[in-house]
Amino acid sequence: MAEKRTEAKQPEEKKAVLPPKSDFSEWYNELLMMGEIMDVRYPVKGLYVWFPFGFEVRNRTYAIIRELLDKDHKEALFPLLIPETEFMKEAEHIKGFENEVYWVTRGGKNELDVKLALRPTSETAIYPMYKIWVRSHADLPIKIYQIVNTFRYETKHTRPLIRLREITSFKEAHTVHATWDDAAEQVKEAVRIYQEFYRRLAIPTIVSKRPDWDKFPGADYTMAVDTLMPDNKTLQIGTAHHLGSNFAKTFDIKYEDLNGEQQYAHQTCYGISERSIAALISIHGDNKGLVFPPEVAPIQVVIIPILFGKSEEITSACRAVAERLKAEGIRTVLDESDERPGAKYYKWEMKGVPLRVEIGPRDLKNNAAMVVRRDSGAKETVPVDNITEEIKTRFEIIRKSLFEKAEISLKERIFDCKTLEEVKDKLSNGIARIPWCGERECGLAMENEVGAGILGVPEGELGRGAGSCPICGKNTGNMAIMAKTY
Amino acid sequence: MAEKRTEAKQPEEKKAVLPPKSDFSEWYNELLMMGEIMDVRYPVKGLYVWFPFGFEVRNRTYAIIRELLDKDHKEALFPLLIPETEFMKEAEHIKGFENEVYWVTRGGKNELDVKLALRPTSETAIYPMYKIWVRSHADLPIKIYQIVNTFRYETKHTRPLIRLREITSFKEAHTVHATWDDAAEQVKEAVRIYQEFYRRLAIPTIVSKRPDWDKFPGADYTMAVDTLMPDNKTLQIGTAHHLGSNFAKTFDIKYEDLNGEQQYAHQTCYGISERSIAALISIHGDNKGLVFPPEVAPIQVVIIPILFGKSEEITSACRAVAERLKAEGIRTVLDESDERPGAKYYKWEMKGVPLRVEIGPRDLKNNAAMVVRRDSGAKETVPVDNITEEIKTRFEIIRKSLFEKAEISLKERIFDCKTLEEVKDKLSNGIARIPWCGERECGLAMENEVGAGILGVPEGELGRGAGSCPICGKNTGNMAIMAKTY
Repeated sequence: MAEKRTEAKQPEEKKAVLPPKSDFSEWYNELLMMGEIMDVRYPVKGLYVWFPFGFEVRNRTYAIIRELLDKDHKEALFPLLIPETEFMKEAEHIKGFENEVYWVTRGGKNELDVKLALRPTSETAIYPMYKIWVRSHADLPIKIYQIVNTFRYETKHTRPLIRLREITSFKEAHTVHATWDDAAEQVKEAVRIYQEFYRRLAIPTIVSKRPDWDKFPGADYTMAVDTLMPDNKTLQIGTAHHLGSNFAKTFDIKYEDLNGEQQYAHQTCYGISERSIAALISIHGDNKGLVFPPEVAPIQVVIIPILFGKSEEITSACRAVAERLKAEGIRTVLDESDERPGAKYYKWEMKGVPLRVEIGPRDLKNNAAMVVRRDSGAKETVPVDNITEEIKTRFEIIRKSLFEKAEISLKERIFDCKTLEEVKDKLSNGIARIPWCGERECGLAMENEVGAGILGVPEGELGRGAGSCPICGKNTGNMAIMAKTY
Repeated sequence: MAEKRTEAKQPEEKKAVLPPKSDFSEWYNELLMMGEIMDVRYPVKGLYVWFPFGFEVRNRTYAIIRELLDKDHKEALFPLLIPETEFMKEAEHIKGFENEVYWVTRGGKNELDVKLALRPTSETAIYPMYKIWVRSHADLPIKIYQIVNTFRYETKHTRPLIRLREITSFKEAHTVHATWDDAAEQVKEAVRIYQEFYRRLAIPTIVSKRPDWDKFPGADYTMAVDTLMPDNKTLQIGTAHHLGSNFAKTFDIKYEDLNGEQQYAHQTCYGISERSIAALISIHGDNKGLVFPPEVAPIQVVIIPILFGKSEEITSACRAVAERLKAEGIRTVLDESDERPGAKYYKWEMKGVPLRVEIGPRDLKNNAAMVVRRDSGAKETVPVDNITEEIKTRFEIIRKSLFEKAEISLKERIFDCKTLEEVKDKLSNGIARIPWCGERECGLAMENEVGAGILGVPEGELGRGAGSCPICGKNTGNMAIMAKTY
């Protein structure tokens, strides 16, 4: 079905053409349809349908998150519906979410006695259980995650995978620790896991501590993972929050320590959503369509026979290669359809198949095959006898190459600025880096002046430098980054 | 965390004891907690929390469904929220669900213009998309499924995994075909898939065509898969519905046939929920706790060193066996804790681990190990050199043995009856089988007289016989089954 759909959907229109990536917003929306990632025609704003092809990308991407977390987390599942009584316990948290919560008020023909919130995030669903589960220091740490649908009543412009009313694939982890320091270590660990995850997807990231006024409602602090999209706006693609004992006090989560004393627990939570897929598609895709790192590509290799007239030899050579690749677990399609090779190239390039294998008469004679990379277009002739190895080697080369290209593109779009005028000037081209003393007043003044947000002081070299705060003039070694954000 | 929880949960009570299985309802509820399947203490009626251990059982079970469906279905994902305008289109369907739908009426502080239903099932979410996707006979058949949370505002007594307000794991497939006959074939195929699924879980089933008055709202007919629970009530654990072109007409799903004519499509849908896990736990479990077929057991083998004093040789022999089993992909735990062997037996029996391996001094001398089956308690000494093969062989033996035992137990509880008095008499012991002419009036009169439902005329020999309808007295070859149901 999936492949037929594209053609079926516009019977009276001419064939859809993908806009150039330089028109990012149009390119993105059209690519989601033409690449069969999401159908945007569901009759409610901000809700979308995952096509089977897109859902497979989603599943392969989330399999990486699961693999990374399962080393020392456990997956569980908590209810979607949160009673108002629990939801309203944490004051900061309510303030942060009250304008975007969907409320179930009716069941059948009855008004509910207690309204039920659709989780916008699950602290208030999970922590009443943690109150029961945590008794002793020996119960700690607890590291649990779930992958669930969450809901936000977005009044802003919605956008598939990025700003949604149903976030279909929210991976949220919730940990409990004895001490504040243990929780701080876990936040670091979460950031390490997310960086590893995005390395696997060949997506470069910047990690920053969010300014205090932009942290998660109810948290001590928030670490955020951002990437830079092709339209030069940053996309927040992961966050890790140190919750201190704020929620523990609200939900009465206590443990008995080694001395027999009752202590409040310390908590963290960290999340990733299908924005990870938005970044994957946006950063690697090009004017021809989707480009995937092989690990998450639903189809990794397409084999195309190059026939002049009929040739049973070429067909059977292609089939033999397909069988060998499949036997090695490589997700392979042999395209024996009657279309011209050019039409086949177009189709499988749109779908982001990392490698195309062509076998024509001359290749057959040489017992060779042409291997074409989707990401670079590079063509190489390889011996058929080694084709499995040749392909596996290229998979890792492709991921690395995508990552390097994306890293260079990110670095090229970070601009060192000394004044807020310069920042304003650079924001439409990418990220501005500017000294900031770290004071709240100065930060807010900077944001106000520039009309864009401070993402924070990034980890590593990016956050260090020398200069003077553009507001108070104080010398500082901290560099903040500012950007237009999604 | 998971294992610690059981002890932690009742700090002031004495250790929980599992009631005997003969007190089924108490046994079931307590086993869900002690076996760490579900926590029933979430503060909303009918909503429950999957413990990590239970969630792993759930995932392994659903992996089987996915494996069976993925042969010719595609997995996709449609939104949870259905606008009232779509939901209210199919008259029969509304009637069937209007009393149990949850409605979202508020977003943030605003009343919504169009109320949103939480899907009780997804016909009305999916078919507006099928209207767009289906154009030509070449698009058909479409076979798509999703695994999602669905919601029912249950006013009856709720019960974990069985009668829920959030069905967390509803697998629903929705297919589109050119002809009524193609759809009928697909219903048969769905039933075959479900029977294969339940064979893998060692759960015996009865397949019946539901009486007309008990079919899915909006369907031409409904095939149902039932099993018999330990308390002699039947549990519906799968259904497949022939939707004819009823929904196609409502949602305007048409295709162009070979002659260029517009035709209404024909549809089916079929579902399985976490009731499959309820059956799995209830049918195989015993007075000692959970019993799992190895395929879905989170832990397949536990190794327990039998030490008299310290013995490094025994410990290292156990570790070597554990490594070998793990290397073969067998989910193995080596229990080196300080507890007595008896306490370890108790703990792992509760968790349903299919095989226990013990190595003590005498075994060590003989280069042997004792292998104990969870299901039967049978003990056998096997040579350590072949232990991987010995264990793998037993896995399939255990599944077959569980299936045979459950099939016998089911057959023993089906009673041939000639009169409705007999039926009434037998219903607390199981399923009553009685001639039925097939007429609606007689069927309703039988149900009324007996105070229990007709499941239908089962497929195969069970549904054939000879006798006379207890209401009209007509001779018939059809046997209906009646039972108390969940």
